[in-house]
Amino acid sequence: MITLIKNGVQRMIPNGYKPFVSDDHFKQEVYQKIEKVYAKKEAQMLASISAIFDIIPIKDGMTLSFHHHYRNGDLLVNMVAEEIKKRGLKNMTFAPSSIFPVHKPLSDLIKNKHITSIYTNYISGDVADTISYGHMKDLLIMDTHGGRARAIETGDINIDVCFIAASAADKHGNANGIDGPNPCGPLGYIYPDLYYAKHKVIVTDTILDKLSSNDIDHSFVDYIIKVSQIGLSTGIESGTTQMTKDPIQLKIAKDTVNLVKELGLIKDGLSFQTGAGSTSIAVSHFLKGEMVKQNIKGSFASGGITKSLTSMFEDQLFDDLYDVQSFDLEAVESYKKNKHHHLMDASQYANPFYKDNIASKLDIVILGATEVDLNFNVNVTTSSTHKLMGGSGGHSDTAYESKLTIITTNLVKSRIPFIKDHVETISTPGTSVDIVVTERGIAVNPRRKDLLEKLKDSLLNITPIESLYQKALDITYKPEPIKHKERIIGLIRYRDGSIIDSIYEVDHK
Amino acid sequence: MITLIKNGVQRMIPNGYKPFVSDDHFKQEVYQKIEKVYAKKEAQMLASISAIFDIIPIKDGMTLSFHHHYRNGDLLVNMVAEEIKKRGLKNMTFAPSSIFPVHKPLSDLIKNKHITSIYTNYISGDVADTISYGHMKDLLIMDTHGGRARAIETGDINIDVCFIAASAADKHGNANGIDGPNPCGPLGYIYPDLYYAKHKVIVTDTILDKLSSNDIDHSFVDYIIKVSQIGLSTGIESGTTQMTKDPIQLKIAKDTVNLVKELGLIKDGLSFQTGAGSTSIAVSHFLKGEMVKQNIKGSFASGGITKSLTSMFEDQLFDDLYDVQSFDLEAVESYKKNKHHHLMDASQYANPFYKDNIASKLDIVILGATEVDLNFNVNVTTSSTHKLMGGSGGHSDTAYESKLTIITTNLVKSRIPFIKDHVETISTPGTSVDIVVTERGIAVNPRRKDLLEKLKDSLLNITPIESLYQKALDITYKPEPIKHKERIIGLIRYRDGSIIDSIYEVDHK
Repeated sequence: MITLIKNGVQRMIPNGYKPFVSDDHFKQEVYQKIEKVYAKKEAQMLASISAIFDIIPIKDGMTLSFHHHYRNGDLLVNMVAEEIKKRGLKNMTFAPSSIFPVHKPLSDLIKNKHITSIYTNYISGDVADTISYGHMKDLLIMDTHGGRARAIETGDINIDVCFIAASAADKHGNANGIDGPNPCGPLGYIYPDLYYAKHKVIVTDTILDKLSSNDIDHSFVDYIIKVSQIGLSTGIESGTTQMTKDPIQLKIAKDTVNLVKELGLIKDGLSFQTGAGSTSIAVSHFLKGEMVKQNIKGSFASGGITKSLTSMFEDQLFDDLYDVQSFDLEAVESYKKNKHHHLMDASQYANPFYKDNIASKLDIVILGATEVDLNFNVNVTTSSTHKLMGGSGGHSDTAYESKLTIITTNLVKSRIPFIKDHVETISTPGTSVDIVVTERGIAVNPRRKDLLEKLKDSLLNITPIESLYQKALDITYKPEPIKHKERIIGLIRYRDGSIIDSIYEVDHK
Repeated sequence: MITLIKNGVQRMIPNGYKPFVSDDHFKQEVYQKIEKVYAKKEAQMLASISAIFDIIPIKDGMTLSFHHHYRNGDLLVNMVAEEIKKRGLKNMTFAPSSIFPVHKPLSDLIKNKHITSIYTNYISGDVADTISYGHMKDLLIMDTHGGRARAIETGDINIDVCFIAASAADKHGNANGIDGPNPCGPLGYIYPDLYYAKHKVIVTDTILDKLSSNDIDHSFVDYIIKVSQIGLSTGIESGTTQMTKDPIQLKIAKDTVNLVKELGLIKDGLSFQTGAGSTSIAVSHFLKGEMVKQNIKGSFASGGITKSLTSMFEDQLFDDLYDVQSFDLEAVESYKKNKHHHLMDASQYANPFYKDNIASKLDIVILGATEVDLNFNVNVTTSSTHKLMGGSGGHSDTAYESKLTIITTNLVKSRIPFIKDHVETISTPGTSVDIVVTERGIAVNPRRKDLLEKLKDSLLNITPIESLYQKALDITYKPEPIKHKERIIGLIRYRDGSIIDSIYEVDHK
């Protein structure tokens, strides 16, 4: 027989059950959510960059990682470098996804053996020079964007502490790159580090009660540090964001789109990637014109996103944008408001072992080059004097994965030829490159007989790469063989982890 | 001295490193991603509902959970019930978030002791009758939407297998409720089960290569089952989705909005929730008119989302929608396309122990009632004859959490009074209710002296609840005390886990 008792609203309930007391009685209970599958930890708030060095603690020989979402507006790498210098730490490995001129202070740390090893995907400015001149103790390893994700996932890079610059966070440790006074866009490159680093630290200048979106879930975050300013939004714009007015670049862009058109690729469902920079923007511009004219609806555009792509997206020329990093504030705004403007993480973007990565669904990628050789090998890592001045980024990744890879480049510029018998450094193997478009002709990789067949009646100037090479020589001169030193100072690690080329010390002239 | 070797592109690299072979060489590698923090498992695809019973295996006495995102268009609960019947399993506990008339087949399973216990938040139709008539062996436990999340997280409900009806999934186990031929909307109610159940099963009729969004992350999913049809989208529309033409309901809706206006609550930043149903839609309609007139911009609307709210959102009257479940296909479409139309999970919505739950940020909630008593207690669970015909859903949750809780109800309908001396069953305690709006007057809870003060010069008909009660009696008659049997067949579990009322067996007339 059940006995009944009276509860807080004078109702009879069976004895043995917890009786209702009042609607706010729960506030007096200590409720411990059972942590099970979805164990959500809360991040710990720290007062300064210095504090994290004590707490972890950060010691000699550790590997610290960073990301380049603020590009040349990044302030975080230098803050951490400053602390390392102050503490006199030695033999550190830095693994920033890219290095820009703003990171000049690292040069001193390299020379003084605070930093003795660097993994990165792109390097320019003073730090590039410092390494080219042979000042770093160990080898520089240049990964690709997809390859870096792979390297972290496989343990080729073991990160002790990853520092993530976020434009805003909440007190739990959720964060993103879009809220706050200094937005930089979707934080696509941070995820391998967020998932695999031993310690994960968000650094931000803005703590909000509510974020537009929790792009970083606090369950992965160990610490939050608030600093006065995390980065400069203006730094995300890499180079010009206006369309070129240079007639040669315009011709290259126009020819590229005509070529794509002749190949029958401007059709519904088209997927497309190109970079920032004025030629790329011109290509997007002419592609847009063609798509509108033919009433074509593409499927997606991907990569680093610029306003030229968001404008195509807003005109409904693409269903989706997959954004690993924004190149201007218009792209950031588009990501903030459009559901189909997606954050794409580095692994999903281009990790060769990420099944069905986004790059593998690309119909067309348009890429640049510093040099192309007769085997279609591309150098985007070193200059004509073998000095470090760039890196693959997503170049090798998308060149391999995309169904069609077009390199656009001047044949000659400032009396320097861009097509050579051999490139100084191989960033991307020629087997991944299908077509090279220059202002004086278009060369198709002989491996792509299918493309040559389709273009056999083309009015475009399709010509063997050897003849482009010859034209370049006719205009300029056969460059002297580059003199670099014998010492290898860096390796170019292909996306699968194999070494595709070596980088050598150069003379400091 | 470093020795050099030649790699696959004829470049010299240091011996001891892995040499580049070719750009597609990685395909020959067996790459095992290191599973670490972010261990992503893949779900296993099964051929039938029957298969999952063998694999887990599902046995006598287990607890199975389901969700009501298809509402009266749900087909999954009955599929699983059919299999239980076929296998002759006994003493099962069912924990569906709601039960609708479509679930009539459960009645037989209850009568034959296949199912002996049910946890749910809302129940109507034949199964409600079956339980009211005393056919279920153990007690029915009626939770709230927020309380169900709490119960699962604390272990008050231990789920062996959760069956999640999804309108589409991919082969990895990612899924959502918005793609495929039978969408139902954001799957807000499934998350406690997805995180805490022992085995998690997605059932769908559509496997896609690419989903619009991975609302369910495959790392939480154990199995996927494809069936011919998972549910009927038409079932999600609960009752009318048109605005009422009934003059009494229109008066109640208008008075409600005027009341809110007099309280000074129609102001920038306003947050608002109401349900489906024709009076609610009329309230939204008049509120919208007032917001437009005064050029007011609200912050958010939440709850089950209808097109009346999406239209306000699209007119930029709200910055955000927090959607636990869509009540029509317009809401589903809005969720698909709008970044600020968010999925809200049950815990985030209204779990009393979820810090800063969305309901707690509400300025105003408008709710219905079957009966209200002189203490402002509300019954939405049983009819005037004590038969089960509903349940709290989010009623008690939002009534407690929101800054202002308004109950709209007819004073009298079909000669039945809606204000009584005592309600048949307490679903929501009167301490959570602030104002009752009827066609013949508005009663303010005397606890809310602040509201009475603000309304003291109001031209609206503000009157004590006792006088509303008297008016009702003047029109109708004092109803006979209800005769229910003595046996308790169910308990109403308040959101904090305490029992607020008992439900009794009724005669089968």
